[in-house]
Amino acid sequence: MSRNIILVDPLPRTLDLIMEPGVRARLEALGEVVISEQHQMPDAQVEELLPDTVLIFGQTPMPRERLDRATKLKAIINVETNFLPNIDYQTCTERGIWVITPGSAFAAPVAESALGMAIDLCRNITAADRQFRAGTEGWGLGGNEGVFRFAGAPVGIIGFGDLGRQFRELARPFRNTVRVFDPWLPDQIIERADCIATDLDTVFRESRVVLMFASVTSENEGFIKKHHFDLMARGSVFLLMSRAAVVDFPAMLAAVASGHIRAAVDVFPTEPVAPDDPVRGMEGLLLSAHRTGGTPDALYAIGEMAVADAELILKGLPPQLCRRADPATAARLRSKPVTVT
Amino acid sequence: MSRNIILVDPLPRTLDLIMEPGVRARLEALGEVVISEQHQMPDAQVEELLPDTVLIFGQTPMPRERLDRATKLKAIINVETNFLPNIDYQTCTERGIWVITPGSAFAAPVAESALGMAIDLCRNITAADRQFRAGTEGWGLGGNEGVFRFAGAPVGIIGFGDLGRQFRELARPFRNTVRVFDPWLPDQIIERADCIATDLDTVFRESRVVLMFASVTSENEGFIKKHHFDLMARGSVFLLMSRAAVVDFPAMLAAVASGHIRAAVDVFPTEPVAPDDPVRGMEGLLLSAHRTGGTPDALYAIGEMAVADAELILKGLPPQLCRRADPATAARLRSKPVTVT
Amino acid sequence: MSRNIILVDPLPRTLDLIMEPGVRARLEALGEVVISEQHQMPDAQVEELLPDTVLIFGQTPMPRERLDRATKLKAIINVETNFLPNIDYQTCTERGIWVITPGSAFAAPVAESALGMAIDLCRNITAADRQFRAGTEGWGLGGNEGVFRFAGAPVGIIGFGDLGRQFRELARPFRNTVRVFDPWLPDQIIERADCIATDLDTVFRESRVVLMFASVTSENEGFIKKHHFDLMARGSVFLLMSRAAVVDFPAMLAAVASGHIRAAVDVFPTEPVAPDDPVRGMEGLLLSAHRTGGTPDALYAIGEMAVADAELILKGLPPQLCRRADPATAARLRSKPVTVT
Amino acid sequence: MSRNIILVDPLPRTLDLIMEPGVRARLEALGEVVISEQHQMPDAQVEELLPDTVLIFGQTPMPRERLDRATKLKAIINVETNFLPNIDYQTCTERGIWVITPGSAFAAPVAESALGMAIDLCRNITAADRQFRAGTEGWGLGGNEGVFRFAGAPVGIIGFGDLGRQFRELARPFRNTVRVFDPWLPDQIIERADCIATDLDTVFRESRVVLMFASVTSENEGFIKKHHFDLMARGSVFLLMSRAAVVDFPAMLAAVASGHIRAAVDVFPTEPVAPDDPVRGMEGLLLSAHRTGGTPDALYAIGEMAVADAELILKGLPPQLCRRADPATAARLRSKPVTVT
Repeated sequence: MSRNIILVDPLPRTLDLIMEPGVRARLEALGEVVISEQHQMPDAQVEELLPDTVLIFGQTPMPRERLDRATKLKAIINVETNFLPNIDYQTCTERGIWVITPGSAFAAPVAESALGMAIDLCRNITAADRQFRAGTEGWGLGGNEGVFRFAGAPVGIIGFGDLGRQFRELARPFRNTVRVFDPWLPDQIIERADCIATDLDTVFRESRVVLMFASVTSENEGFIKKHHFDLMARGSVFLLMSRAAVVDFPAMLAAVASGHIRAAVDVFPTEPVAPDDPVRGMEGLLLSAHRTGGTPDALYAIGEMAVADAELILKGLPPQLCRRADPATAARLRSKPVTVT
Repeated sequence: MSRNIILVDPLPRTLDLIMEPGVRARLEALGEVVISEQHQMPDAQVEELLPDTVLIFGQTPMPRERLDRATKLKAIINVETNFLPNIDYQTCTERGIWVITPGSAFAAPVAESALGMAIDLCRNITAADRQFRAGTEGWGLGGNEGVFRFAGAPVGIIGFGDLGRQFRELARPFRNTVRVFDPWLPDQIIERADCIATDLDTVFRESRVVLMFASVTSENEGFIKKHHFDLMARGSVFLLMSRAAVVDFPAMLAAVASGHIRAAVDVFPTEPVAPDDPVRGMEGLLLSAHRTGGTPDALYAIGEMAVADAELILKGLPPQLCRRADPATAARLRSKPVTVT
Repeated sequence: MSRNIILVDPLPRTLDLIMEPGVRARLEALGEVVISEQHQMPDAQVEELLPDTVLIFGQTPMPRERLDRATKLKAIINVETNFLPNIDYQTCTERGIWVITPGSAFAAPVAESALGMAIDLCRNITAADRQFRAGTEGWGLGGNEGVFRFAGAPVGIIGFGDLGRQFRELARPFRNTVRVFDPWLPDQIIERADCIATDLDTVFRESRVVLMFASVTSENEGFIKKHHFDLMARGSVFLLMSRAAVVDFPAMLAAVASGHIRAAVDVFPTEPVAPDDPVRGMEGLLLSAHRTGGTPDALYAIGEMAVADAELILKGLPPQLCRRADPATAARLRSKPVTVT
Repeated sequence: MSRNIILVDPLPRTLDLIMEPGVRARLEALGEVVISEQHQMPDAQVEELLPDTVLIFGQTPMPRERLDRATKLKAIINVETNFLPNIDYQTCTERGIWVITPGSAFAAPVAESALGMAIDLCRNITAADRQFRAGTEGWGLGGNEGVFRFAGAPVGIIGFGDLGRQFRELARPFRNTVRVFDPWLPDQIIERADCIATDLDTVFRESRVVLMFASVTSENEGFIKKHHFDLMARGSVFLLMSRAAVVDFPAMLAAVASGHIRAAVDVFPTEPVAPDDPVRGMEGLLLSAHRTGGTPDALYAIGEMAVADAELILKGLPPQLCRRADPATAARLRSKPVTVT
């Protein structure tokens, strides 16, 4: 007899982490849910389920041979949120199997954190708290040396995907002039958000607050260098929010150490950072242990977006919340599996 | 021959601190500027200038006897921004002498800081930086215990003057439900800002982020008590941004010390805080040495607002940027001269 | 025994017209309400009530002699919404009697209508409906000759009080560059609303949509002349929303008749307009019989604002919703009693 | 020698109609442009160009046989903006040939017109202009019978694609409660825009302003019936902005004729409407000859979006402005070639 299997293979996530009870109930209403959470689903089990599988939630390898056997499959929904090279994307495209991921779930918490950290750096909030604790605080105007207002300060955004756009919306009431560098986008997309599309040097030269939101691709590794930090006006601030690899990390630290800029850093070349890494003692740095995105609600959003799109797909409608894997784009993005978030 | 004196008596401020060169030039275009910055203007000098004085920028005492001699006086513009009991307000009102102050100049920087601190408390930004420096940080989801999103969290605002309203505008993109307690305002003012007018207990009971923006009056000293902190849900956050005297300070600290709430504090019962005050070592507290308002641009805004309104007044038009001293209201407000900001 | 009279003398309005039942109940909770609606309250009745009157809602003449006898009077609230020269404003000011009016009640409906009419003129909506009815309509692109988008068109606003500011807020999503001429305001007020403060000629020269929101004063009668319409680019649109007297009306009609501009007109030199006035047959004109402000909800807003402020005043607090009569300003405004709205 | 042909076959449009000179210059920078504007490009010419064609702008039929010969083809950009069944979509998908259309170009002008018309219907703007011309106008409050404010009125939107969403953004300052019915979308998309996702009956029952923005599909023809108009509160307004076929047109007219509702109609079952169609004389109707979308700037937007995406595609990047043909969706949409717009 015919079964409609929903194959759930979510590691490094678990179903409880990404679905609140109500969402899980909606998942279970879509078919017969089979879960492997302790370890990746064993090959034998996958092979047995494939002919009846309509949806895959997870990162199960799906080469051509498996797709050939999964004749009822409608969608593969990656809940780890980075596309991996373990799927035959071309065959999925040809067969109308959606390969999608709710990656934008992390944009909202990171954008919120980025705004908090941008204000923090402009106004020296965390640094002043440390001074207060050390008994070296300045009072009133005397505590505001080097401080400037985020409101009205020229802002530069590098990478204008979900994250950059959400940050821009959160910052609207502050009325900054916002310059954007994103070579993957037409100017119109940037201008619609009331930003100025410009080149990378101009972003660094004209902005007092620069936010790095770009993904790593095969082409942009380390593309932010000493040259760019040198272009920044003294006392400006830089926020590294996406991936450490897009920046020449030592050059950034040197710019901070010299007092030229202040910076907030959520991502590091090696994580966790070594116990004796000198970064832990640097002034002018706001330190964050890759924690701006991984809030409980962001994980639940992954599950909710995934299930909502699964519901549409099973009705024959296109998904609306998750991002599609575009094979060409997927190939450029250099993702590695996450361990923590 | 007739002179038009502009008497400038700005202590504790100085003219350079509150006016950029362009604004000062506009001031000088309005009349003959006479300044006393080292000390309050001596009585003899005031008496000599009064008959030709059209504008006073500063806190010069102006009792009835002086007003009687100042027959050309059009306005007294307090640049310290707290109305003091050293003016005969009633006589000024009767004679059409404007008594005004650009007090809202501080609203913008405080509101910006308050939003940064609210996000900081919700997301544990400063605390996580301290842990990172101590080598005790958690990574990713593991660093987000007790964290919640500011976006969407129910917010409570106490005191909905310039400061409360500016904060509300900055927070708009976060789509919080905002409850407001302000007994001086009709509900309509609060509802126009898309907030809910409610009572004090409801603000504390329903909000996860409560911001104290109320001024001290003769009636509200210490009106936030243990009772109110007890009403807050565990893990909520409280921001004390206006005056320490509106809160039972020890009760607030006890609520933080017990882990019931987290708090940000910009104002203290005694400033500066003693070197050995235990507040300096408390966890769950974001410490700020009365520095959220006194930014350089806020001081310049004082001067610019004062001069722009002076220009209007000398054309026979009503001022538009400064607040008028309403004698009844002025009497209720318990201001003391500022020393620092 | 002591009574607290609320004297209601609201002609040309009636209490039912301006207060919904709930608001009226709030009024009645404030004191003993005595109403004269058929005619202005007779002198004898006024004289009798004065010693116990705490509030006046209406346009009762209040010269010095009456004020002397009204020793309990706290406020005069004009519900016709134009300040008249029948009150001794100076004495009221000296005695702390508020003289206020909820005039901004009309701003919201007029601003809404103005936006609808601005889009109408840009897109030829009413004219196209007339052509459709006459069987002369053009279809699709063929029906859009002379049409331009309101979105993005440069807008000019003359008069930036409640009305101009509310219009500006309604138009925000259309992202126009907005130029403002208002000689009563400092540039800062205009710039805070993201508009450009400029001179009158520039407003006409640079804008494709010009809105007249200025009140008539003793100084600005007929200040918009042929010169200004000549400055407008051919095919631009003009909206006359405040008072006909601020414009050289025949010059405006000539500019429309010649096809140089299109216009919307809500106010006329003589109202009602004569049955045979040629304006009734003009193309390029959107005609409105002084009806943009007088909506049922605007009248109810008058009552609600008046009562809410009365509640505050009786608690010893300043009013928050109504505008104060500033004697100097009141003298400049050339208001005449309204007959209809 | 190798050529890179850009095949332009834009009928019923012409290149001048959709591209301003600057955009056309960008097009010409992308390759060798070959145009057929007098008639659809002849088969022989197409066949000859195919092997060197990299981009097609237009509606050239592209069955499998032609795709097999177009080995350099990267994208087919439909500039008529309705997907037609003359392309082998499946083969394009398999081969990574983008099939896209800048259909959202019309959303902005239609949304703007819809807001103007919604205000017009609520406030009786066009009807009052007609009465003024007929000498039967009412003045002030007397001219506002049946009028209500758009601001704050409950709004219902049917179809929440580009058009519905742009309308929603334009209406934001009016603070309406907005209910949306769109069975193709998850609730989250609707809620993110601060709207309420609900069923069709509720939209009609609870809204005073209902806007029809839905496309015609094979499933929704005539789905708005007498039943729905009956659910509307008397005096409410309905705007038919997308396709006439989604509505039972006679039932809608009957609801207007009876005085139950007022309506604005931009699309008709047969266009142009017959000279003697009684619709031309109906009161309560705002008539528009399919002219809300076809503004000159909308046509230029088509060209600009098409060229901007072509530039991305030739760099190997995904398009960002045009919509992709999803084969499944395309099959459901019942588009017919446009004649006018």
